[in-house]
Amino acid sequence: MPDALFEDLGFAKVDHDRARRQGSGEVIYGAGKTPEQIAAIATSLHKAGQSVVLVTRLASEAAEAVRGLLAKSGVEAPFSYHQVPQLGMLGTPPAPDGNGIVVVAAAGTSDLPVAEEAAFTAECLGSEVVRLYDVGVAGIHRLLAYEEDIARAQAIVAVAGMEGALASVVGGLAKCPVIAVPTSVGYGASFNGLAALLSMLNSCASNVSVVNIDNGFGAGFQANLINHAAVK
Amino acid sequence: MPDALFEDLGFAKVDHDRARRQGSGEVIYGAGKTPEQIAAIATSLHKAGQSVVLVTRLASEAAEAVRGLLAKSGVEAPFSYHQVPQLGMLGTPPAPDGNGIVVVAAAGTSDLPVAEEAAFTAECLGSEVVRLYDVGVAGIHRLLAYEEDIARAQAIVAVAGMEGALASVVGGLAKCPVIAVPTSVGYGASFNGLAALLSMLNSCASNVSVVNIDNGFGAGFQANLINHAAVK
Amino acid sequence: MPDALFEDLGFAKVDHDRARRQGSGEVIYGAGKTPEQIAAIATSLHKAGQSVVLVTRLASEAAEAVRGLLAKSGVEAPFSYHQVPQLGMLGTPPAPDGNGIVVVAAAGTSDLPVAEEAAFTAECLGSEVVRLYDVGVAGIHRLLAYEEDIARAQAIVAVAGMEGALASVVGGLAKCPVIAVPTSVGYGASFNGLAALLSMLNSCASNVSVVNIDNGFGAGFQANLINHAAVK
Amino acid sequence: MPDALFEDLGFAKVDHDRARRQGSGEVIYGAGKTPEQIAAIATSLHKAGQSVVLVTRLASEAAEAVRGLLAKSGVEAPFSYHQVPQLGMLGTPPAPDGNGIVVVAAAGTSDLPVAEEAAFTAECLGSEVVRLYDVGVAGIHRLLAYEEDIARAQAIVAVAGMEGALASVVGGLAKCPVIAVPTSVGYGASFNGLAALLSMLNSCASNVSVVNIDNGFGAGFQANLINHAAVK
Amino acid sequence: MPDALFEDLGFAKVDHDRARRQGSGEVIYGAGKTPEQIAAIATSLHKAGQSVVLVTRLASEAAEAVRGLLAKSGVEAPFSYHQVPQLGMLGTPPAPDGNGIVVVAAAGTSDLPVAEEAAFTAECLGSEVVRLYDVGVAGIHRLLAYEEDIARAQAIVAVAGMEGALASVVGGLAKCPVIAVPTSVGYGASFNGLAALLSMLNSCASNVSVVNIDNGFGAGFQANLINHAAVK
Amino acid sequence: MPDALFEDLGFAKVDHDRARRQGSGEVIYGAGKTPEQIAAIATSLHKAGQSVVLVTRLASEAAEAVRGLLAKSGVEAPFSYHQVPQLGMLGTPPAPDGNGIVVVAAAGTSDLPVAEEAAFTAECLGSEVVRLYDVGVAGIHRLLAYEEDIARAQAIVAVAGMEGALASVVGGLAKCPVIAVPTSVGYGASFNGLAALLSMLNSCASNVSVVNIDNGFGAGFQANLINHAAVK
Amino acid sequence: MPDALFEDLGFAKVDHDRARRQGSGEVIYGAGKTPEQIAAIATSLHKAGQSVVLVTRLASEAAEAVRGLLAKSGVEAPFSYHQVPQLGMLGTPPAPDGNGIVVVAAAGTSDLPVAEEAAFTAECLGSEVVRLYDVGVAGIHRLLAYEEDIARAQAIVAVAGMEGALASVVGGLAKCPVIAVPTSVGYGASFNGLAALLSMLNSCASNVSVVNIDNGFGAGFQANLINHAAVK
Amino acid sequence: MPDALFEDLGFAKVDHDRARRQGSGEVIYGAGKTPEQIAAIATSLHKAGQSVVLVTRLASEAAEAVRGLLAKSGVEAPFSYHQVPQLGMLGTPPAPDGNGIVVVAAAGTSDLPVAEEAAFTAECLGSEVVRLYDVGVAGIHRLLAYEEDIARAQAIVAVAGMEGALASVVGGLAKCPVIAVPTSVGYGASFNGLAALLSMLNSCASNVSVVNIDNGFGAGFQANLINHAAVK
Repeated sequence: MPDALFEDLGFAKVDHDRARRQGSGEVIYGAGKTPEQIAAIATSLHKAGQSVVLVTRLASEAAEAVRGLLAKSGVEAPFSYHQVPQLGMLGTPPAPDGNGIVVVAAAGTSDLPVAEEAAFTAECLGSEVVRLYDVGVAGIHRLLAYEEDIARAQAIVAVAGMEGALASVVGGLAKCPVIAVPTSVGYGASFNGLAALLSMLNSCASNVSVVNIDNGFGAGFQANLINHAAVK
Repeated sequence: MPDALFEDLGFAKVDHDRARRQGSGEVIYGAGKTPEQIAAIATSLHKAGQSVVLVTRLASEAAEAVRGLLAKSGVEAPFSYHQVPQLGMLGTPPAPDGNGIVVVAAAGTSDLPVAEEAAFTAECLGSEVVRLYDVGVAGIHRLLAYEEDIARAQAIVAVAGMEGALASVVGGLAKCPVIAVPTSVGYGASFNGLAALLSMLNSCASNVSVVNIDNGFGAGFQANLINHAAVK
Repeated sequence: MPDALFEDLGFAKVDHDRARRQGSGEVIYGAGKTPEQIAAIATSLHKAGQSVVLVTRLASEAAEAVRGLLAKSGVEAPFSYHQVPQLGMLGTPPAPDGNGIVVVAAAGTSDLPVAEEAAFTAECLGSEVVRLYDVGVAGIHRLLAYEEDIARAQAIVAVAGMEGALASVVGGLAKCPVIAVPTSVGYGASFNGLAALLSMLNSCASNVSVVNIDNGFGAGFQANLINHAAVK
Repeated sequence: MPDALFEDLGFAKVDHDRARRQGSGEVIYGAGKTPEQIAAIATSLHKAGQSVVLVTRLASEAAEAVRGLLAKSGVEAPFSYHQVPQLGMLGTPPAPDGNGIVVVAAAGTSDLPVAEEAAFTAECLGSEVVRLYDVGVAGIHRLLAYEEDIARAQAIVAVAGMEGALASVVGGLAKCPVIAVPTSVGYGASFNGLAALLSMLNSCASNVSVVNIDNGFGAGFQANLINHAAVK
Repeated sequence: MPDALFEDLGFAKVDHDRARRQGSGEVIYGAGKTPEQIAAIATSLHKAGQSVVLVTRLASEAAEAVRGLLAKSGVEAPFSYHQVPQLGMLGTPPAPDGNGIVVVAAAGTSDLPVAEEAAFTAECLGSEVVRLYDVGVAGIHRLLAYEEDIARAQAIVAVAGMEGALASVVGGLAKCPVIAVPTSVGYGASFNGLAALLSMLNSCASNVSVVNIDNGFGAGFQANLINHAAVK
Repeated sequence: MPDALFEDLGFAKVDHDRARRQGSGEVIYGAGKTPEQIAAIATSLHKAGQSVVLVTRLASEAAEAVRGLLAKSGVEAPFSYHQVPQLGMLGTPPAPDGNGIVVVAAAGTSDLPVAEEAAFTAECLGSEVVRLYDVGVAGIHRLLAYEEDIARAQAIVAVAGMEGALASVVGGLAKCPVIAVPTSVGYGASFNGLAALLSMLNSCASNVSVVNIDNGFGAGFQANLINHAAVK
Repeated sequence: MPDALFEDLGFAKVDHDRARRQGSGEVIYGAGKTPEQIAAIATSLHKAGQSVVLVTRLASEAAEAVRGLLAKSGVEAPFSYHQVPQLGMLGTPPAPDGNGIVVVAAAGTSDLPVAEEAAFTAECLGSEVVRLYDVGVAGIHRLLAYEEDIARAQAIVAVAGMEGALASVVGGLAKCPVIAVPTSVGYGASFNGLAALLSMLNSCASNVSVVNIDNGFGAGFQANLINHAAVK
Repeated sequence: MPDALFEDLGFAKVDHDRARRQGSGEVIYGAGKTPEQIAAIATSLHKAGQSVVLVTRLASEAAEAVRGLLAKSGVEAPFSYHQVPQLGMLGTPPAPDGNGIVVVAAAGTSDLPVAEEAAFTAECLGSEVVRLYDVGVAGIHRLLAYEEDIARAQAIVAVAGMEGALASVVGGLAKCPVIAVPTSVGYGASFNGLAALLSMLNSCASNVSVVNIDNGFGAGFQANLINHAAVK
């Protein structure tokens, strides 16, 4: 069994090869894992040399527990927790080194947790992020006031619940790819984000692709990837 | 059995009381009816004094058959047929007598049949209609060029398939009610108009209500009603 | 950045231009916002001269917190809270000044919160409202007892869960537009309001349009708009 | 193998025990069967003494083929075909012998084929049927004109597409069970009868049960059963 | 306004005409009503002479509250509460006086609350009920042991969750109508009863009709109606 | 590039390693492939030594074309076509060499094409197959007449449309695994096989697993695998 | 009534014939049953001679209660409880006696409860189980490291949430049947396991069948059956 | 009205500003447009200086008609048509000038039309494309044979129907963003691509985003955008 490529913790096979294979290390999906499992995986990745270990969907009490367990197991790198996007981070993020900026646009105030997950993820991975919040299309002039930021972005994350129309309008204003994130914000026939998801998948703008409902992490991850494109 | 209120044709009970009760006469839904049935109902309504009888979802061959049958049964009022919206009309529409204009806005060229059904219906019932076609949100400046028409409308019909975002953007620019019509234009995850329907139902604009997918008739009917509001 | 049109609070861009653009000011969607955010937005709108600021989907504890925060920040206008429809209001509603009455009809006792949201919204915006509650179609004579109110309305809001049939029956009796509100009342195959929603979208009455499940606010808003149509 | 209970034709095991077990003989579902298969099953049932053999969902060309095959195989009982409900019948129906009448009510002209399938099935099995067609709820007075028929029925079949509201209104007027049949009549968000189906399943009337979309046969069968309940 | 037909309590219009119109009095749907509302409606019906008033979906604490309120308002008829089916009853049920028996068959132990709602409802309305519980089709011999009860029933209620197959097997054994009740028992792809609902709607047995998921009340009500068929 | 494992035809990479890796060779899914593509893949597999090459979902005209192309390219093995299951076969199937029998049970006559696809596939791969057709649960005695075959099977394929109840009943009678195949037979709320699919997934019998709607091939393939279990 | 085949406890008819008919005894589905019901059924099965009685979906507090009740009723066989898979067991499992091994593969750490339910079930019924956990396809080398285990299995259970791709990849590597278990792990458009379920049903590997979402028990049961196939 | 930004053809408002605003000109969605409309829009764009005008979803007969109309209106640039992806192109594509290669990977032979739409689109817009076809995950070694191409790509388009697992496996091997395109290839529970769509949206790989079912164009467009990212 090739032990260089992953470490087998029993409940998890930690992927030590990911940074080589994919350019950035493994990220821990916190939901449904115990603090003990999270701390063990984070420690394994940290010891294998991964400089920043992100933990997504981490509740604040679990974060406290993880912090304690990391300390106990002698991990010295700092562990910080960010409440709004429910993200934990072991290590220190790099200075921004992308080709330009990532714009994160959100339709409404209730979309902030998802938008912050995207923005913070991109920052942790080395991107400069410009945030445009509460720019939903029912007051289109609020969005148009930022046309310049949209025009100069390397990648844009568009976050919206309800009817999800923001993605198409932003798409029509942008030169770069737009990663659309439907959110579960809404009620009734939003069906927990389905309406926004379908809306975004059917965008009439050619530069819009979509990630899962509330997946701010994935959108931030991809926007950062695009922002670090390099001639190979 | 109260024969003043409806005529019983066996396959149909023609509603002669509708104009009194609802302010405008019965409209014939053409789909799934034979030309003979359509002609008989139209004749019954015409003879009962209804000045304009609309037939929706009428194929052109069926229209020809209806025309012949009406002639045979001695109906002298003109019967016209309008190809794009698939509408037949017995009688002559009134001169526009609403309080102002009805705007019909459509997102794309493929939405024209539904938009025309709305526009033509409103015209037949006495409204002046301003058409704004191909003003989809991926090129928002095309819509913004007509802000003035939107601002002065008594009622607006917003027609869009795919992601249906037009309704929210128009809603945010308008002072009046917006009747949104999702269309079945699109493919894949548009699910024959479901995406646009859900999008419109979740509009973040407070003045948007929605009718069935491809129901241009209903939207035009309601826009015309609003345009004829009267102090009672 | 055009600061006349909106105020940027960071988490929100408060739309000061809405009253000019749309005829009535911004309404605050309370769900998913903190009392601090709500109070700040309400204050911003109030200071910009908006005479009535509505807050929808506001829990009673949150309402208490908002009241305290408004007092602390020196807002002197009264803040009232209405339990059944979960609505908060900053300021004093205008005297009714519409063209006529708005009728709010509800099918069952369990539909009252949504019906009251519609009725109260329309009243706050200047409409006289007539309430017809528990007039579901399984006892059709209860509805027919109020045919006169239905016939003289400028706009009707029809609120129903379960099979949502009320909208079609009311539609067939009315001269004016009917805004149908499906509610999440029911169980099993009501699928939280989906059955009523689909039923209403497929209404055989031409004057029925539909808003989102449980969206009493939107229906009341639109009924009030229609009741204030500019009449020649 | 118990050969008294069924005959094995290879492609079918014809149920000769059904009349004893269930009170009426097997009915042949014609869709997806070849004329040869239909004729063979009908012959088997006829020879086993079943006086009336119904074939549902039988296209007219297939009916012609079946007629020829029955003749060839020496079956002397008459075979009739009924175009609107697409029903074939081998044998002669009994004189009506139920406890009272079965009412078949249909909302619109387009619902007639399904309504006729129900009515004809009930007649073939021995019920007197009263037909109320085009009594949809948007013109409620048309239905109310027949309150007396509804009040005296032993069982009612309510047939409707679109929003399917007829079932609830009829249910509220009737003393007897109502079998509701949603039809696929409609477009867009009717989703081929799903809207009517859900509407009927959520009926606020306690005496409504539902069969599959377009299943006129089942409704007629059950209404006839109820009409033949053994009475003390 | 015709006050003989209903009493207007403001939040409810109590239907005093139902017993005349439909043969049995109004039943109170307890979910979403306050004990005060329930007690007031029950009192109104009781005072109008209805001998048994059922309250469905009534939690035990609410039942206690209703009992107290009825006592306080001087209602002397007994109020009983039945825990498993969550039913309250004001008054004394009649002696069984139907034409025969109603069979209530349930697939599994977890389906008992719904099955008891059906059985108890039928008993309260005057039917003798035979209960066959835990006769799911995975052990078909358990059901076949009761073929005789099935064969002699006037009406059968078949209650099942998961795959809902019980309805079809019972249907194939019965001479009478079968009212199928899908339950929300199950997990995963049962989708809270949708699987059983669709299964029952597609039953290959001709005598099966379906009510809403978990609607034991409706099924018991209808079975009792069939059991009381009378020659008119 | 490892050319031993597959042959690259451009439009296809033919998997020559599958027989070694999986125990039986590649099967060609005929739908959406041209006769030229099918013939080329079949030739490639045949030349690589695969003794039987199955082609599923092959229309009869396409089969003729494939036959011609195979002949032209000098393939000498026989190519046979089987109309009911729409299967083509290049080569000669082995003599039955499984541990016992595979039973294929089908609910109705309309399910035969899918049942035959399963039966024929299992036979081609070396299983003896016993067919039980038209044993749907509405006439349960027809199925029970074959309890012995069910009890001695090594694996059972249960094929049913509509409510799909056959799988559970067979499951409860069998000692071996049951592979359930929902079919698209039915109408209305069968939603093209969805009802049967959900029913089978929720089977209360522990030994039932499910394949895709109409996937007779997969079921036959797996039943044959089970029938060839060997001690390793 | 045949009392040899089942014991009637009123709320349950305990199937004493299952072991004879199906090769292994009845398993108790714990969800929705009271500890009293569970203990009574377990006692009935134990006294009838069933050596191992499994209880699935048993919460830990309920397990404690069951243990106490069993002790009180004098059952002397050991009762053990297994936290992760929420399984109770009365009796002692047999030594492994299958034809080979069962492999249980799980995509992620969050899938462990379902995977353990499958593994433990198979072990209790007499299979040797090899567990491969956290071998999701986004790090395909982790799975490929265990190709040998996959190749020698008699049956494989593949457990995955989110996109469920594990089943297809494992299917393509295996010689034996693969029972796929979709889990409800995921969020947003996983729709509680629907995405994984559909993915697995559409597997391009011919040897994959599927059980209900989170049904680890069924998968383990079937894998064990296959592992005990009678071999010539 | 700002005529510099778009040309109003009545049925369309051709967006002349798009190249400036978005970096590449407008693309014509051919479905639902007449050849006359397509030719007119293409002419308008061509005359405004757009060097390549793509027409998607263009049937071959329509392409012939468009070619004739373009010739008639004096457009001299070449118009070519590509059958498999159903794409028309007016003008000559640029030489590849991206930062590296775009990889288009397709799971099966039936996915080729969509894959070619993506590949051809990217080529027309200036990207070098490497095609990897028939690399579905059921034969994972076929994909692994091309790990090097995957590792060096600037962007990858992953095209798959059925279970759509390809996207996740490719995602786990790639350093760059993966645009996943679900296709409608499959049957039964693929629900015309819904299974693949959901699967891709739930990908456990962080670098996967998704476009609409069968939207090869959008994926190719975005992959090309990423391949042309401005690099420091």
